[in-house]
Amino acid sequence: MDKVIRMVEDGEYCIDTLHQSHAVQKALKESDAVILENHMHTCMADAIKKGNDTMVIKEVMEILKRQK
Amino acid sequence: MDKVIRMVEDGEYCIDTLHQSHAVQKALKESDAVILENHMHTCMADAIKKGNDTMVIKEVMEILKRQK
Amino acid sequence: MDKVIRMVEDGEYCIDTLHQSHAVQKALKESDAVILENHMHTCMADAIKKGNDTMVIKEVMEILKRQK
Amino acid sequence: MDKVIRMVEDGEYCIDTLHQSHAVQKALKESDAVILENHMHTCMADAIKKGNDTMVIKEVMEILKRQK
Repeated sequence: MDKVIRMVEDGEYCIDTLHQSHAVQKALKESDAVILENHMHTCMADAIKKGNDTMVIKEVMEILKRQK
Repeated sequence: MDKVIRMVEDGEYCIDTLHQSHAVQKALKESDAVILENHMHTCMADAIKKGNDTMVIKEVMEILKRQK
Repeated sequence: MDKVIRMVEDGEYCIDTLHQSHAVQKALKESDAVILENHMHTCMADAIKKGNDTMVIKEVMEILKRQK
Repeated sequence: MDKVIRMVEDGEYCIDTLHQSHAVQKALKESDAVILENHMHTCMADAIKKGNDTMVIKEVMEILKRQK
């Protein structure tokens, strides 16, 4: 991330800056997937077992709709 | 969808064809969200309540990873 | 596309329907990339060579912003 | 970005961490769009005016394909 900002400030070739920015976004998406999977196995599964399906599913759907 | 194919065949202005294609993709994404939310409320919640968390969560995560 | 609609109507397993829907979206994205690349080589390059950069670039950027 | 990392380390509620991560990705996408538009107006337009269409268009298409 700091590298992306430095590249913009240094006036590096746009295409290289874009590739670096996408690398950061890809890394964030991968960590999001890990966090989301973990959330489903813990908070979401617990809530569903307690019968609180509506709220947890709504939360996850909001996250997914934003991603698009 | 048929409109997208016809626009390509008719050699319509590329930009218009792309806007039409995105409209189709947007409609599919919206219907995907409805299907996924419904899946979570039914199959996924049922499986989790029966203790079969692993398999249903894996399935959903595979869908989400593909979307990106 | 027709297959996606038929799968929803037939009440097929949600996850299978979602995979089919993504296959359609992937195909559309691939054809979009071909159309866009072709557009850049023809209309966009011609316009830029005639000095009409602003309008063609604005059009392409609008397409790209919508895709996100 | 540092906030996302700190949130993960501090064990904050997954959903909040995901919202923060998406905010970072959205900001990066917006800055990408500015960089890309600027690139089209400068490097890309210059190259096309000099007849070097193939290489600049290929570069931009590679960026766009990666984003999907």
